[in-house]
Amino acid sequence: MTIVEDVRIKTGFIYPHSASFRLLSVNAEIIAIGSELLTPFRQDTNSLYLTEKLNQLGVEVVLKTVVGDSRERLVSVAQHALFRSDIVIFMGGLGPTEDDLTREAVAEALGVELHRDPEILKKLEQRFAARGYQMTPNNAQQADVIAGATVLPNPNGSAPGQWITGHYEGRDRLIILLPGPPFELKAMFDEQCTERLRAKLPPAYIATRVLKVAMMGESLVDSRVAPIYKRYTDVQTTILAGAGDVQFNLFTRAASMEEAQQRVDELAGEIEDELEDAVYSSKGESLEQIAGYYLGMRGATLAVAESCTGGLLAERVTSISGSSRYFLGGVVVYSNALKTKFADVPAGLITQHGAVSREVAAALAEGIRKRCKATFGIGITGVAGPAGGTEEKPVGLVYIALASEDRTQVEERKFPGDRKRVRWFATQLALDMIRRKLM
Amino acid sequence: MTIVEDVRIKTGFIYPHSASFRLLSVNAEIIAIGSELLTPFRQDTNSLYLTEKLNQLGVEVVLKTVVGDSRERLVSVAQHALFRSDIVIFMGGLGPTEDDLTREAVAEALGVELHRDPEILKKLEQRFAARGYQMTPNNAQQADVIAGATVLPNPNGSAPGQWITGHYEGRDRLIILLPGPPFELKAMFDEQCTERLRAKLPPAYIATRVLKVAMMGESLVDSRVAPIYKRYTDVQTTILAGAGDVQFNLFTRAASMEEAQQRVDELAGEIEDELEDAVYSSKGESLEQIAGYYLGMRGATLAVAESCTGGLLAERVTSISGSSRYFLGGVVVYSNALKTKFADVPAGLITQHGAVSREVAAALAEGIRKRCKATFGIGITGVAGPAGGTEEKPVGLVYIALASEDRTQVEERKFPGDRKRVRWFATQLALDMIRRKLM
Repeated sequence: MTIVEDVRIKTGFIYPHSASFRLLSVNAEIIAIGSELLTPFRQDTNSLYLTEKLNQLGVEVVLKTVVGDSRERLVSVAQHALFRSDIVIFMGGLGPTEDDLTREAVAEALGVELHRDPEILKKLEQRFAARGYQMTPNNAQQADVIAGATVLPNPNGSAPGQWITGHYEGRDRLIILLPGPPFELKAMFDEQCTERLRAKLPPAYIATRVLKVAMMGESLVDSRVAPIYKRYTDVQTTILAGAGDVQFNLFTRAASMEEAQQRVDELAGEIEDELEDAVYSSKGESLEQIAGYYLGMRGATLAVAESCTGGLLAERVTSISGSSRYFLGGVVVYSNALKTKFADVPAGLITQHGAVSREVAAALAEGIRKRCKATFGIGITGVAGPAGGTEEKPVGLVYIALASEDRTQVEERKFPGDRKRVRWFATQLALDMIRRKLM
Repeated sequence: MTIVEDVRIKTGFIYPHSASFRLLSVNAEIIAIGSELLTPFRQDTNSLYLTEKLNQLGVEVVLKTVVGDSRERLVSVAQHALFRSDIVIFMGGLGPTEDDLTREAVAEALGVELHRDPEILKKLEQRFAARGYQMTPNNAQQADVIAGATVLPNPNGSAPGQWITGHYEGRDRLIILLPGPPFELKAMFDEQCTERLRAKLPPAYIATRVLKVAMMGESLVDSRVAPIYKRYTDVQTTILAGAGDVQFNLFTRAASMEEAQQRVDELAGEIEDELEDAVYSSKGESLEQIAGYYLGMRGATLAVAESCTGGLLAERVTSISGSSRYFLGGVVVYSNALKTKFADVPAGLITQHGAVSREVAAALAEGIRKRCKATFGIGITGVAGPAGGTEEKPVGLVYIALASEDRTQVEERKFPGDRKRVRWFATQLALDMIRRKLM
């Protein structure tokens, strides 16, 4: 790819000398393309990721648009965006189907030509050949490049991205085309856009911190912490609440990196002092990462026996790469017979107390711990719903046990919400019990 | 509120006789207002709700915009929207703070005046008085009404909505202002907008279908199906692709319900014929629902032994309410010792072939099947990554075995992507193997 220099086009779009190009203001607009994002079923989430990354570079996102696979509307949206914003990022519509119109529409909005790049075409054909397929003709449009664009290779998919700098109506503009699949988009932005973009921007000193709190209600946390963060008018504090999780995002800009970092660290320190051991993460780590970190650090191992959570706890623990160092294994024991067979829960205990009981949770934890020769065993039994609840044992009732060599601790909770939420809450508490035990 | 009739305004916005007003085309645009929706942490979800309701009335949503609390940008977005779409819905920015600019900006975009409505003002004051507060002056702006608007009372909050019909640049337009809080917005739209809107629209008969395809690439599926759906110019076909999943959404409008249903059913039938047994769902069900449905229908049971998927398969199967009828249980066996202990995989087999091998996958499936006395056993072993790959056994290599009484079938795959994606693909294939076995 060569950069076309100083070519004035009929719409007023000019490619500048690439070396001298530098954006002075820092507004961005994100355009998500795809008719599926205009249905009640799907939502653009890529823009959340990009917004975070752009903010970290000192760029503010001022507008987001979702437009369908309509060339006319896409051209119109592109032109309005180019008129009002410094950076315009297009996501999606780069694939092989007839609905994939982003390349054509952006070229039309800019008033420039598309050309088919023989190198990309060759790579596409090789990609198909490597998998034993012949490339179908519709794939060739993925090799179409907007005149003057730098091609951004896509190691994770077939459609490359594009990077275009120039003037539009007399102002500096940066245009980025990214693929829609989140995995491809994230990798391409991180690996090929972040540093390229930083070089085009005025230096920004931004510091962020993320604090996470497990198993405390949002309004309780906020009532304790609000008097603190309200004193830090130069730090933007955002509170996000999920099931069994409250997250504080701290964000500040300052004249130097040291100053910015110091301000967010100061505020983070005060919040941690107020909430004490309820803060499980001070750098944004997930609860499964933190529990795994403590297990690894102590040289301890874990085994789990799950009933109502159906494998979700094992899944969360093993979602962390390297978890095989501390996670030995687990069993999902829905039936009473398997509770006995795989975790040595005495059949009589189940008859006496019922499968959903404090006693069975403890026996599951102790049984799986011994079976797997683990330092710790977790047992979970409960009613995830929506069916299966009784007056005595309602939907949402869950017992979680943590067994170690010296003792077994059992927690009883009545979690609110649907099946998915109850299961999530239960695993959240289980992970937090491990963290508190080892902290 | 009185409707101003036939008043021509400088921007070309005219209020028509309200009784005769009827939209003939049916495109809508949704604009969400609020700077918090432009952070990495918050997302507009109201538009999903409105889209569903609008689609049911035969209205297509063609654009969505999120704009911050900036009057200039909001006016610009409003003007573009009014120019290109029949219905424009604004959500949020109706509250009492200085950031609440929607009323002002829409009035400016239309080139009409705002006036303060004494009746609304009185109700606001009463609302505060009833709670024992005196109303602060900033609240008064919530009584500002766009000239010609019908006020939509808000029983769930302080800010009323507004409903405006007229011509803009020579075309019929409907403008709706709704409050941002989801609870207020939903109630106001359902109770005060749906029937009002239906009266302005041509009668709509809409039918939809959802088809899902497992474990086939999007471009391969599309190249086979595109020639079919392209013949149905009256049916809108949207393709969504996820990891190991391609989804077709079919949507049509017709002069009668029967005709609409017949058209989508016809197209769905042709697609199913073309893709044969690759279509696992024809009503939008998930793959775990379908696999569970077949297991339940055949009176069969399932047990699983997972290594690299770490419980994800069990988790997906048990995410379905009622899965305890067919899912007996599972084991997550990371260590070699536990593969032997919980699924009777001979230690010598692991030494001979390695833990990631066709033989061990088969032994896991057969072992867990016998242990749990299940109709079917699934065994999964592989390298989920990012660490642990070798030249011979690279990251992404997964063996999946399905054991039944008479035979054991083993699939070998090299899945692309990160840990999360490899694990997802593996469980997707496992569920599809169950489906195909029972189909």
